[in-house]
Amino acid sequence: MSNSMTLPPPSPTSLCWRASVEMMRLFLVFTCLCLGLVAAADWNIVSQKRRHGLAKSGLKTYCESWRINVELNNIRGFELVPQECVDHVTRYMTSSQYEADSQRAVEEVRLYLSSCCALKGDGKDAWIFDVDDTLLSTIPYYKKHGFGGQKLNASLLEAWMKESKAPALEHSLGLFHEIKDKGVKIFLISSRSETLRSSTVDNLIDVGYHGWSNLVLRGLEDQLQKVQQYKSDARKRLVDEGYRIWGIMGDQWSSVEGLPSVERTFKLPNSIYYIS
Amino acid sequence: MSNSMTLPPPSPTSLCWRASVEMMRLFLVFTCLCLGLVAAADWNIVSQKRRHGLAKSGLKTYCESWRINVELNNIRGFELVPQECVDHVTRYMTSSQYEADSQRAVEEVRLYLSSCCALKGDGKDAWIFDVDDTLLSTIPYYKKHGFGGQKLNASLLEAWMKESKAPALEHSLGLFHEIKDKGVKIFLISSRSETLRSSTVDNLIDVGYHGWSNLVLRGLEDQLQKVQQYKSDARKRLVDEGYRIWGIMGDQWSSVEGLPSVERTFKLPNSIYYIS
Repeated sequence: MSNSMTLPPPSPTSLCWRASVEMMRLFLVFTCLCLGLVAAADWNIVSQKRRHGLAKSGLKTYCESWRINVELNNIRGFELVPQECVDHVTRYMTSSQYEADSQRAVEEVRLYLSSCCALKGDGKDAWIFDVDDTLLSTIPYYKKHGFGGQKLNASLLEAWMKESKAPALEHSLGLFHEIKDKGVKIFLISSRSETLRSSTVDNLIDVGYHGWSNLVLRGLEDQLQKVQQYKSDARKRLVDEGYRIWGIMGDQWSSVEGLPSVERTFKLPNSIYYIS
Repeated sequence: MSNSMTLPPPSPTSLCWRASVEMMRLFLVFTCLCLGLVAAADWNIVSQKRRHGLAKSGLKTYCESWRINVELNNIRGFELVPQECVDHVTRYMTSSQYEADSQRAVEEVRLYLSSCCALKGDGKDAWIFDVDDTLLSTIPYYKKHGFGGQKLNASLLEAWMKESKAPALEHSLGLFHEIKDKGVKIFLISSRSETLRSSTVDNLIDVGYHGWSNLVLRGLEDQLQKVQQYKSDARKRLVDEGYRIWGIMGDQWSSVEGLPSVERTFKLPNSIYYIS
Protein backbone atom coordinates (compact mmCIF):
# COMPACT_ATOMS: atom_id res chain seq x y z
CA MET A 1 0.00 0.00 0.00
CA SER A 2 1.28 3.45 -0.79
CA ASN A 3 1.41 6.18 1.91
CA SER A 4 1.65 8.87 -0.66
CA MET A 5 -2.14 9.16 -1.05
CA THR A 6 -3.15 12.61 0.28
CA LEU A 7 -6.55 14.31 0.72
CA PRO A 8 -7.21 17.32 -1.49
CA PRO A 9 -6.80 20.63 0.40
CA PRO A 10 -10.17 21.81 1.85
CA SER A 11 -11.97 24.37 -0.27
CA PRO A 12 -12.28 27.92 1.23
CA THR A 13 -16.13 27.56 1.49
CA SER A 14 -15.89 24.29 3.47
CA LEU A 15 -13.35 25.97 5.79
CA CYS A 16 -15.74 28.83 6.24
CA TRP A 17 -18.62 26.45 7.08
CA ARG A 18 -16.52 24.69 9.71
CA ALA A 19 -15.44 28.01 11.24
CA SER A 20 -19.06 29.14 11.41
CA VAL A 21 -20.20 25.91 13.07
CA GLU A 22 -17.35 26.23 15.56
CA MET A 23 -18.36 29.78 16.34
CA MET A 24 -22.02 28.74 16.83
CA ARG A 25 -20.88 26.02 19.22
CA LEU A 26 -18.75 28.52 21.16
CA PHE A 27 -21.71 30.86 21.40
CA LEU A 28 -24.03 28.13 22.62
CA VAL A 29 -21.51 27.08 25.30
CA PHE A 30 -21.04 30.71 26.32
CA THR A 31 -24.81 31.35 26.54
CA CYS A 32 -25.35 28.15 28.58
CA LEU A 33 -22.53 29.15 30.94
CA CYS A 34 -24.04 32.61 31.43
CA LEU A 35 -27.53 31.23 32.12
CA GLY A 36 -26.01 28.68 34.51
CA LEU A 37 -24.18 31.39 36.42
CA VAL A 38 -27.35 33.51 36.65
CA ALA A 39 -29.36 30.52 37.92
CA ALA A 40 -26.71 29.65 40.52
CA ALA A 41 -26.60 33.23 41.78
CA ASP A 42 -30.42 33.28 41.96
CA TRP A 43 -30.45 30.01 43.90
CA ASN A 44 -27.87 31.33 46.31
CA ILE A 45 -29.89 34.51 46.91
CA VAL A 46 -33.07 32.44 47.40
CA SER A 47 -31.48 30.11 49.94
CA GLN A 48 -29.79 33.00 51.77
CA LYS A 49 -33.16 34.75 51.92
CA ARG A 50 -34.82 31.55 53.18
CA ARG A 51 -32.21 31.08 55.92
CA HIS A 52 -32.46 34.74 56.89
CA GLY A 53 -36.27 34.49 56.68
CA LEU A 54 -36.39 31.51 59.06
CA ALA A 55 -34.24 33.29 61.63
CA LYS A 56 -36.36 36.42 61.22
CA SER A 57 -39.59 34.42 61.42
CA GLY A 58 -38.49 32.85 64.74
CA LEU A 59 -37.91 36.30 66.22
CA LYS A 60 -41.13 37.57 64.66
CA THR A 61 -43.13 34.75 66.26
CA TYR A 62 -41.46 35.39 69.62
CA CYS A 63 -42.12 39.15 69.53
CA GLU A 64 -45.66 38.70 68.25
CA SER A 65 -46.29 36.36 71.23
CA TRP A 66 -44.91 39.01 73.53
CA ARG A 67 -47.19 41.62 71.98
CA ILE A 68 -50.35 39.48 72.01
CA ASN A 69 -49.73 38.51 75.65
CA VAL A 70 -49.41 42.20 76.53
CA GLU A 71 -52.76 42.84 74.84
CA LEU A 72 -54.30 39.83 76.64
CA ASN A 73 -53.06 41.37 79.91
CA ASN A 74 -51.04 38.24 80.61
CA ILE A 75 -47.81 40.27 80.59
CA ARG A 76 -48.26 43.15 83.02
CA GLY A 77 -46.24 46.03 84.38
CA PHE A 78 -43.36 45.82 81.90
CA GLU A 79 -41.04 48.82 82.08
CA LEU A 80 -39.36 48.28 78.75
CA VAL A 81 -40.24 46.57 75.51
CA PRO A 82 -37.69 43.70 75.24
CA GLN A 83 -34.76 45.06 73.18
CA GLU A 84 -35.08 42.31 70.56
CA CYS A 85 -38.76 43.22 70.05
CA VAL A 86 -38.43 47.00 69.75
CA ASP A 87 -38.33 46.77 65.94
CA HIS A 88 -41.39 44.51 65.91
CA VAL A 89 -43.36 46.84 68.18
CA THR A 90 -42.24 49.88 66.18
CA ARG A 91 -43.36 48.23 62.96
CA TYR A 92 -46.75 47.32 64.45
CA MET A 93 -47.45 50.69 66.13
CA THR A 94 -46.71 52.55 62.88
CA SER A 95 -48.48 50.05 60.62
CA SER A 96 -51.79 50.00 58.81
CA GLN A 97 -52.59 46.97 61.02
CA TYR A 98 -52.49 49.17 64.14
CA GLU A 99 -54.71 51.69 62.35
CA ALA A 100 -57.13 48.94 61.30
CA ASP A 101 -57.17 47.40 64.79
CA SER A 102 -57.98 50.78 66.38
CA GLN A 103 -60.60 51.50 63.73
CA ARG A 104 -62.27 48.15 64.36
CA ALA A 105 -62.40 48.86 68.10
CA VAL A 106 -64.10 52.20 67.35
CA GLU A 107 -66.58 50.46 65.04
CA GLU A 108 -67.43 48.02 67.82
CA VAL A 109 -68.21 50.98 70.13
CA ARG A 110 -70.52 52.34 67.41
CA LEU A 111 -72.23 48.97 67.04
CA TYR A 112 -72.69 48.72 70.81
CA LEU A 113 -74.05 52.28 71.09
CA SER A 114 -76.52 51.72 68.26
CA SER A 115 -78.54 49.29 70.36
CA CYS A 116 -77.21 49.11 73.88
CA CYS A 117 -78.45 51.88 75.96
CA ALA A 118 -81.72 53.26 77.14
CA LEU A 119 -80.36 56.81 77.01
CA LYS A 120 -82.59 59.02 79.13
CA GLY A 121 -81.41 62.38 77.86
CA ASP A 122 -81.52 63.70 81.43
CA GLY A 123 -77.88 64.75 81.34
CA LYS A 124 -76.81 61.73 83.37
CA ASP A 125 -75.77 59.43 80.50
CA ALA A 126 -71.99 59.32 80.43
CA TRP A 127 -69.01 57.96 78.50
CA ILE A 128 -65.37 57.88 79.60
CA PHE A 129 -62.31 58.29 77.39
CA ASP A 130 -58.68 57.97 78.33
CA VAL A 131 -56.52 60.70 76.69
CA ASP A 132 -53.06 59.45 75.64
CA ASP A 133 -53.11 56.92 72.81
CA THR A 134 -56.89 56.96 72.95
CA LEU A 135 -57.73 60.51 71.84
CA LEU A 136 -54.20 61.87 71.32
CA SER A 137 -51.29 59.88 69.94
CA THR A 138 -47.93 59.85 71.72
CA ILE A 139 -46.35 57.92 68.85
CA PRO A 140 -44.47 61.01 67.55
CA TYR A 141 -42.77 61.23 70.98
CA TYR A 142 -41.90 57.54 71.13
CA LYS A 143 -40.63 57.66 67.54
CA LYS A 144 -37.87 59.96 68.83
CA HIS A 145 -37.33 58.08 72.09
CA GLY A 146 -36.74 54.44 71.33
CA PHE A 147 -40.31 53.18 70.96
CA GLY A 148 -40.60 51.65 74.40
CA GLY A 149 -37.06 50.29 74.28
CA GLN A 150 -35.64 53.22 76.31
CA LYS A 151 -36.43 53.84 79.96
CA LEU A 152 -39.16 56.46 80.17
CA ASN A 153 -37.85 59.95 80.85
CA ALA A 154 -40.93 61.52 82.48
CA SER A 155 -39.59 65.08 82.25
CA LEU A 156 -38.90 64.74 78.52
CA LEU A 157 -42.35 63.27 77.93
CA GLU A 158 -44.01 66.05 79.94
CA ALA A 159 -41.97 68.66 78.07
CA TRP A 160 -43.25 67.15 74.82
CA MET A 161 -46.83 67.15 76.13
CA LYS A 162 -46.43 70.83 77.05
CA GLU A 163 -45.81 71.58 73.36
CA SER A 164 -49.44 70.50 72.71
CA LYS A 165 -48.43 68.92 69.42
CA ALA A 166 -49.87 65.42 69.84
CA PRO A 167 -51.98 64.46 66.83
CA ALA A 168 -55.50 63.05 67.20
CA LEU A 169 -56.32 59.38 66.71
CA GLU A 170 -58.50 59.99 63.70
CA HIS A 171 -61.12 57.29 64.38
CA SER A 172 -61.43 58.28 68.03
CA LEU A 173 -62.06 61.89 67.00
CA GLY A 174 -65.05 60.85 64.90
CA LEU A 175 -66.40 58.64 67.69
CA PHE A 176 -65.98 61.40 70.30
CA HIS A 177 -68.32 63.71 68.40
CA GLU A 178 -70.82 60.96 67.57
CA ILE A 179 -71.15 60.08 71.26
CA LYS A 180 -71.46 63.75 72.23
CA ASP A 181 -74.12 64.27 69.55
CA LYS A 182 -76.23 61.55 71.19
CA GLY A 183 -76.48 63.78 74.25
CA VAL A 184 -74.08 61.60 76.23
CA LYS A 185 -71.73 63.52 78.51
CA ILE A 186 -68.07 62.83 77.89
CA PHE A 187 -65.58 62.59 80.73
CA LEU A 188 -61.86 62.44 80.06
CA ILE A 189 -59.96 60.63 82.80
CA SER A 190 -56.23 60.82 82.20
CA SER A 191 -53.13 59.92 84.16
CA ARG A 192 -51.51 63.16 82.98
CA SER A 193 -50.51 65.50 85.77
CA GLU A 194 -52.70 68.48 86.76
CA THR A 195 -49.75 70.75 85.80
CA LEU A 196 -50.39 69.80 82.16
CA ARG A 197 -54.01 71.03 82.17
CA SER A 198 -53.71 74.03 79.88
CA SER A 199 -51.37 72.29 77.41
CA THR A 200 -53.71 69.31 77.31
CA VAL A 201 -56.80 71.43 76.75
CA ASP A 202 -54.99 73.41 74.02
CA ASN A 203 -53.84 70.22 72.34
CA LEU A 204 -57.28 68.58 72.46
CA ILE A 205 -59.00 71.66 71.04
CA ASP A 206 -56.32 72.22 68.38
CA VAL A 207 -56.88 68.77 66.89
CA GLY A 208 -60.67 68.98 67.01
CA TYR A 209 -61.94 67.75 70.39
CA HIS A 210 -64.32 70.07 72.19
CA GLY A 211 -67.43 69.90 74.33
CA TRP A 212 -66.34 67.37 76.96
CA SER A 213 -67.94 67.70 80.39
CA ASN A 214 -64.87 67.30 82.55
CA LEU A 215 -61.17 66.60 82.14
CA VAL A 216 -59.91 64.74 85.20
CA LEU A 217 -56.12 64.98 85.72
CA ARG A 218 -53.90 63.70 88.52
CA GLY A 219 -53.36 66.14 91.34
CA LEU A 220 -50.46 65.86 93.76
CA GLU A 221 -52.46 63.65 96.16
CA ASP A 222 -53.38 61.25 93.29
CA GLN A 223 -49.71 60.67 92.44
CA LEU A 224 -49.44 58.40 95.47
CA GLN A 225 -52.03 56.02 94.07
CA LYS A 226 -51.70 53.49 91.30
CA VAL A 227 -53.36 54.72 88.12
CA GLN A 228 -56.02 51.99 88.14
CA GLN A 229 -57.10 53.05 91.66
CA TYR A 230 -57.06 56.74 90.73
CA LYS A 231 -59.22 56.05 87.67
CA SER A 232 -61.60 53.79 89.63
CA ASP A 233 -62.01 56.55 92.23
CA ALA A 234 -62.78 59.12 89.53
CA ARG A 235 -65.40 56.71 88.12
CA LYS A 236 -66.88 56.16 91.57
CA ARG A 237 -67.33 59.91 92.01
CA LEU A 238 -69.26 60.02 88.73
CA VAL A 239 -71.49 57.12 89.78
CA ASP A 240 -72.07 58.79 93.13
CA GLU A 241 -73.13 61.95 91.27
CA GLY A 242 -75.79 59.87 89.54
CA TYR A 243 -74.13 59.32 86.16
CA ARG A 244 -74.88 56.17 84.19
CA ILE A 245 -71.53 55.26 82.61
CA TRP A 246 -72.33 53.32 79.43
CA GLY A 247 -68.76 52.60 78.49
CA ILE A 248 -65.05 53.37 78.67
CA MET A 249 -62.49 53.45 75.91
CA GLY A 250 -58.81 53.35 76.76
CA ASP A 251 -55.52 51.86 75.60
CA GLN A 252 -54.52 50.54 79.04
CA TRP A 253 -56.21 47.83 81.08
CA SER A 254 -55.87 50.18 84.08
CA SER A 255 -58.26 52.58 82.32
CA VAL A 256 -61.04 50.03 81.93
CA GLU A 257 -60.66 47.59 84.85
CA GLY A 258 -61.46 47.91 88.53
CA LEU A 259 -64.60 48.92 90.39
CA PRO A 260 -67.12 50.30 89.77
CA SER A 261 -67.25 48.22 86.59
CA VAL A 262 -69.27 49.61 83.71
CA GLU A 263 -71.58 48.16 81.06
CA ARG A 264 -68.88 47.74 78.38
CA THR A 265 -65.21 48.57 78.02
CA PHE A 266 -63.15 48.89 74.86
CA LYS A 267 -59.40 48.46 74.82
CA LEU A 268 -57.28 49.98 72.06
CA PRO A 269 -54.01 48.23 71.25
CA ASN A 270 -50.80 49.66 72.73
CA SER A 271 -47.62 47.69 73.23
CA ILE A 272 -45.21 50.59 73.81
CA TYR A 273 -45.80 51.08 77.53
CA TYR A 274 -47.81 49.68 80.43
CA ILE A 275 -49.51 51.74 83.14
CA SER A 276 -50.65 49.82 86.23
CA MET B 1 -15.77 60.02 -16.21
CA SER B 2 -16.30 56.40 -17.13
CA ASN B 3 -18.96 54.25 -15.38
CA SER B 4 -17.33 51.08 -16.48
CA MET B 5 -15.02 50.89 -13.45
CA THR B 6 -16.03 47.77 -11.42
CA LEU B 7 -14.84 46.36 -8.08
CA PRO B 8 -13.02 43.01 -8.10
CA PRO B 9 -15.25 40.08 -6.97
CA PRO B 10 -14.89 39.40 -3.21
CA SER B 11 -12.49 36.64 -2.24
CA PRO B 12 -14.00 33.46 -0.63
CA THR B 13 -12.26 34.21 2.74
CA SER B 14 -13.68 37.74 2.91
CA LEU B 15 -17.14 36.26 2.14
CA CYS B 16 -16.63 33.74 4.93
CA TRP B 17 -15.67 36.51 7.39
CA ARG B 18 -18.77 38.51 6.55
CA ALA B 19 -20.97 35.41 6.94
CA SER B 20 -19.45 34.70 10.34
CA VAL B 21 -19.94 38.28 11.53
CA GLU B 22 -23.54 38.13 10.31
CA MET B 23 -24.11 34.88 12.21
CA MET B 24 -22.61 36.35 15.42
CA ARG B 25 -24.90 39.34 15.08
CA LEU B 26 -27.91 37.05 14.62
CA PHE B 27 -26.91 35.07 17.71
CA LEU B 28 -26.49 38.20 19.78
CA VAL B 29 -29.92 39.49 18.70
CA PHE B 30 -31.46 36.07 19.45
CA THR B 31 -29.82 35.88 22.92
CA CYS B 32 -30.94 39.43 23.76
CA LEU B 33 -34.49 38.62 22.63
CA CYS B 34 -34.55 35.48 24.81
CA LEU B 35 -33.24 37.35 27.87
CA GLY B 36 -35.76 40.14 27.20
CA LEU B 37 -38.63 37.65 27.05
CA VAL B 38 -37.51 35.97 30.28
CA ALA B 39 -37.26 39.36 32.05
CA ALA B 40 -40.71 40.42 30.79
CA ALA B 41 -42.27 37.16 31.98
CA ASP B 42 -40.56 37.57 35.36
CA TRP B 43 -41.81 41.15 35.67
CA ASN B 44 -45.33 40.04 34.80
CA ILE B 45 -45.24 37.31 37.47
CA VAL B 46 -43.87 39.77 40.03
CA SER B 47 -46.58 42.37 39.34
CA GLN B 48 -49.33 39.72 39.33
CA LYS B 49 -48.01 38.46 42.67
CA ARG B 50 -47.91 42.04 44.00
CA ARG B 51 -51.52 42.75 42.94
CA HIS B 52 -52.68 39.42 44.39
CA GLY B 53 -50.60 40.10 47.50
CA LEU B 54 -52.20 43.51 48.03
CA ALA B 55 -55.73 42.08 47.76
CA LYS B 56 -54.74 39.25 50.09
CA SER B 57 -53.02 41.67 52.46
CA GLY B 58 -56.20 43.81 52.70
CA LEU B 59 -58.24 40.77 53.75
CA LYS B 60 -55.45 39.62 56.05
CA THR B 61 -55.38 43.02 57.80
CA TYR B 62 -59.17 43.00 58.13
CA CYS B 63 -59.30 39.48 59.57
CA GLU B 64 -56.35 40.10 61.86
CA SER B 65 -58.21 43.16 63.21
CA TRP B 66 -61.26 40.99 63.78
CA ARG B 67 -59.13 38.43 65.63
CA ILE B 68 -57.24 40.95 67.79
CA ASN B 69 -60.50 42.68 68.74
CA VAL B 70 -61.93 39.31 69.79
CA GLU B 71 -58.88 38.76 71.99
CA LEU B 72 -59.19 42.32 73.39
CA ASN B 73 -62.81 41.47 74.27
CA ASN B 74 -64.00 44.36 72.11
CA ILE B 75 -65.93 41.94 69.88
CA ARG B 76 -68.17 39.84 72.09
CA GLY B 77 -70.77 37.15 71.75
CA PHE B 78 -70.11 36.31 68.10
CA GLU B 79 -71.88 33.15 66.94
CA LEU B 80 -69.83 32.60 63.82
CA VAL B 81 -66.38 33.57 62.62
CA PRO B 82 -67.05 35.88 59.62
CA GLN B 83 -67.00 33.66 56.51
CA GLU B 84 -64.23 35.69 54.86
CA CYS B 85 -62.04 35.23 57.97
CA VAL B 86 -62.48 31.47 58.49
CA ASP B 87 -59.28 30.75 56.55
CA HIS B 88 -57.37 33.33 58.57
CA VAL B 89 -58.61 31.95 61.89
CA THR B 90 -57.93 28.37 60.75
CA ARG B 91 -54.39 29.32 59.78
CA TYR B 92 -53.79 31.03 63.13
CA MET B 93 -55.34 28.34 65.33
CA THR B 94 -53.23 25.64 63.64
CA SER B 95 -50.05 27.73 63.47
CA SER B 96 -46.82 27.80 65.42
CA GLN B 97 -47.84 31.36 66.37
CA TYR B 98 -50.86 30.01 68.31
CA GLU B 99 -48.56 27.47 69.97
CA ALA B 100 -46.05 30.18 70.84
CA ASP B 101 -48.76 32.54 72.14
CA SER B 102 -50.17 29.81 74.41
CA GLN B 103 -46.69 28.83 75.55
CA ARG B 104 -45.89 32.44 76.44
CA ALA B 105 -49.11 32.70 78.50
CA VAL B 106 -48.07 29.56 80.39
CA GLU B 107 -44.59 31.01 80.97
CA GLU B 108 -46.17 34.15 82.42
CA VAL B 109 -48.15 32.00 84.89
CA ARG B 110 -44.87 30.34 85.88
CA LEU B 111 -43.19 33.74 86.35
CA TYR B 112 -46.11 34.96 88.44
CA LEU B 113 -46.17 31.82 90.60
CA SER B 114 -42.42 31.99 91.22
CA SER B 115 -42.82 35.14 93.31
CA CYS B 116 -46.46 35.99 93.82
CA CYS B 117 -47.97 34.02 96.53
CA ALA B 118 -47.50 33.47 100.19
CA LEU B 119 -48.57 29.84 99.86
CA LYS B 120 -49.55 28.57 103.29
CA GLY B 121 -49.57 24.86 102.53
CA ASP B 122 -52.73 24.51 104.63
CA GLY B 123 -54.67 22.95 101.77
CA LYS B 124 -56.49 26.20 101.04
CA ASP B 125 -54.26 27.53 98.25
CA ALA B 126 -56.14 27.09 94.99
CA TRP B 127 -55.83 27.50 91.23
CA ILE B 128 -58.62 27.32 88.64
CA PHE B 129 -58.36 25.95 85.11
CA ASP B 130 -60.98 25.98 82.40
CA VAL B 131 -61.08 22.66 80.46
CA ASP B 132 -61.78 23.09 76.73
CA ASP B 133 -58.99 24.83 74.83
CA THR B 134 -57.18 25.36 78.10
CA LEU B 135 -56.33 21.80 79.18
CA LEU B 136 -57.87 19.86 76.27
CA SER B 137 -57.91 21.01 72.65
CA THR B 138 -61.15 21.00 70.64
CA ILE B 139 -59.25 21.91 67.48
CA PRO B 140 -59.55 18.36 66.04
CA TYR B 141 -63.36 18.76 66.27
CA TYR B 142 -63.40 22.20 64.68
CA LYS B 143 -61.03 21.02 61.95
CA LYS B 144 -63.85 18.75 60.78
CA HIS B 145 -66.63 21.28 61.39
CA GLY B 146 -65.77 24.49 59.63
CA PHE B 147 -63.44 26.12 62.17
CA GLY B 148 -66.00 28.47 63.67
CA GLY B 149 -67.52 29.26 60.28
CA GLN B 150 -70.39 26.74 60.74
CA LYS B 151 -73.17 27.19 63.29
CA LEU B 152 -72.31 25.12 66.35
CA ASN B 153 -74.04 21.75 66.42
CA ALA B 154 -74.08 21.08 70.18
CA SER B 155 -75.08 17.40 69.81
CA LEU B 156 -72.23 16.71 67.39
CA LEU B 157 -69.75 18.48 69.68
CA GLU B 158 -71.00 16.53 72.72
CA ALA B 159 -70.84 13.27 70.75
CA TRP B 160 -67.20 14.10 69.93
CA MET B 161 -66.49 14.94 73.59
CA LYS B 162 -68.00 11.58 74.59
CA GLU B 163 -65.30 9.86 72.53
CA SER B 164 -62.73 11.26 75.01
CA LYS B 165 -60.22 11.81 72.22
CA ALA B 166 -59.35 15.48 72.77
CA PRO B 167 -55.57 15.95 72.92
CA ALA B 168 -53.88 17.88 75.73
CA LEU B 169 -52.54 21.41 75.27
CA GLU B 170 -48.95 20.38 75.88
CA HIS B 171 -47.80 23.51 77.75
CA SER B 172 -50.89 23.51 79.98
CA LEU B 173 -50.21 19.88 80.91
CA GLY B 174 -46.75 20.78 82.20
CA LEU B 175 -48.11 23.78 84.10
CA PHE B 176 -50.92 21.73 85.66
CA HIS B 177 -48.45 19.37 87.32
CA GLU B 178 -46.08 22.16 88.36
CA ILE B 179 -48.90 23.97 90.17
CA LYS B 180 -50.10 20.74 91.79
CA ASP B 181 -46.53 19.95 92.90
CA LYS B 182 -46.45 23.26 94.79
CA GLY B 183 -49.24 21.91 97.00
CA VAL B 184 -51.83 24.17 95.36
CA LYS B 185 -55.25 22.55 94.90
CA ILE B 186 -56.49 22.54 91.35
CA PHE B 187 -60.13 23.13 90.51
CA LEU B 188 -61.45 22.57 87.00
CA ILE B 189 -64.49 24.71 86.25
CA SER B 190 -65.91 23.85 82.85
CA SER B 191 -69.04 24.78 80.91
CA ARG B 192 -69.33 21.14 79.78
CA SER B 193 -72.53 19.45 80.84
CA GLU B 194 -72.68 17.16 83.88
CA THR B 195 -73.70 14.32 81.50
CA LEU B 196 -70.14 14.41 80.10
CA ARG B 197 -68.48 13.77 83.46
CA SER B 198 -67.13 10.26 82.88
CA SER B 199 -65.98 10.98 79.31
CA THR B 200 -64.28 14.16 80.50
CA VAL B 201 -62.52 12.41 83.38
CA ASP B 202 -61.43 9.57 81.06
CA ASN B 203 -60.14 12.05 78.51
CA LEU B 204 -58.23 14.14 81.07
CA ILE B 205 -56.59 11.08 82.62
CA ASP B 206 -55.79 9.50 79.25
CA VAL B 207 -53.74 12.53 78.17
CA GLY B 208 -51.93 12.90 81.49
CA TYR B 209 -53.97 15.10 83.84
CA HIS B 210 -54.60 13.65 87.29
CA GLY B 211 -54.82 14.80 90.87
CA TRP B 212 -57.24 17.73 90.59
CA SER B 213 -59.39 18.48 93.62
CA ASN B 214 -62.73 18.97 91.92
CA LEU B 215 -64.17 19.01 88.43
CA VAL B 216 -67.15 21.37 88.34
CA LEU B 217 -69.54 20.73 85.43
CA ARG B 218 -72.87 22.34 84.55
CA GLY B 219 -75.89 20.63 86.03
CA LEU B 220 -79.38 21.09 84.63
CA GLU B 221 -80.06 24.09 86.91
CA ASP B 222 -76.82 25.80 85.73
CA GLN B 223 -77.88 25.62 82.09
CA LEU B 224 -80.27 28.51 82.72
CA GLN B 225 -77.42 30.81 83.67
CA LYS B 226 -74.88 32.51 81.46
CA VAL B 227 -71.52 30.78 81.67
CA GLN B 228 -69.79 33.76 83.28
CA GLN B 229 -72.37 33.79 86.11
CA TYR B 230 -72.13 30.01 86.53
CA LYS B 231 -68.33 30.22 86.77
CA SER B 232 -68.45 33.20 89.14
CA ASP B 233 -70.84 31.27 91.40
CA ALA B 234 -68.53 28.25 91.42
CA ARG B 235 -65.65 30.56 92.37
CA LYS B 236 -67.72 32.16 95.11
CA ARG B 237 -68.40 28.76 96.64
CA LEU B 238 -64.65 28.10 96.75
CA VAL B 239 -63.97 31.45 98.42
CA ASP B 240 -66.77 30.75 100.90
CA GLU B 241 -65.10 27.43 101.70
CA GLY B 242 -61.98 29.37 102.62
CA TYR B 243 -59.88 28.82 99.50
CA ARG B 244 -57.38 31.48 98.44
CA ILE B 245 -57.64 31.47 94.64
CA TRP B 246 -54.26 32.64 93.33
CA GLY B 247 -55.19 32.58 89.69
CA ILE B 248 -57.35 31.37 86.81
CA MET B 249 -56.33 30.25 83.38
CA GLY B 250 -58.92 30.03 80.62
CA ASP B 251 -59.39 30.70 76.92
CA GLN B 252 -62.64 32.68 77.37
CA TRP B 253 -63.11 36.03 79.09
CA SER B 254 -66.16 34.47 80.79
CA SER B 255 -63.80 32.07 82.59
CA VAL B 256 -61.69 34.82 84.13
CA GLU B 257 -64.00 37.83 84.58
CA GLY B 258 -66.76 38.55 87.08
CA LEU B 259 -66.85 38.49 90.87
CA PRO B 260 -65.23 37.37 93.04
CA SER B 261 -62.20 38.59 91.15
CA VAL B 262 -58.91 36.84 91.83
CA GLU B 263 -55.28 37.89 92.19
CA ARG B 264 -54.34 37.26 88.53
CA THR B 265 -56.03 35.83 85.47
CA PHE B 266 -54.44 34.44 82.31
CA LYS B 267 -56.27 34.32 79.01
CA LEU B 268 -55.23 31.88 76.30
CA PRO B 269 -55.98 32.89 72.71
CA ASN B 270 -59.08 31.44 71.03
CA SER B 271 -60.84 32.98 68.09
CA ILE B 272 -62.97 30.01 67.03
CA TYR B 273 -65.89 30.55 69.40
CA TYR B 274 -67.12 32.88 72.11
CA ILE B 275 -68.85 31.83 75.35
CA SER B 276 -70.61 34.59 77.28
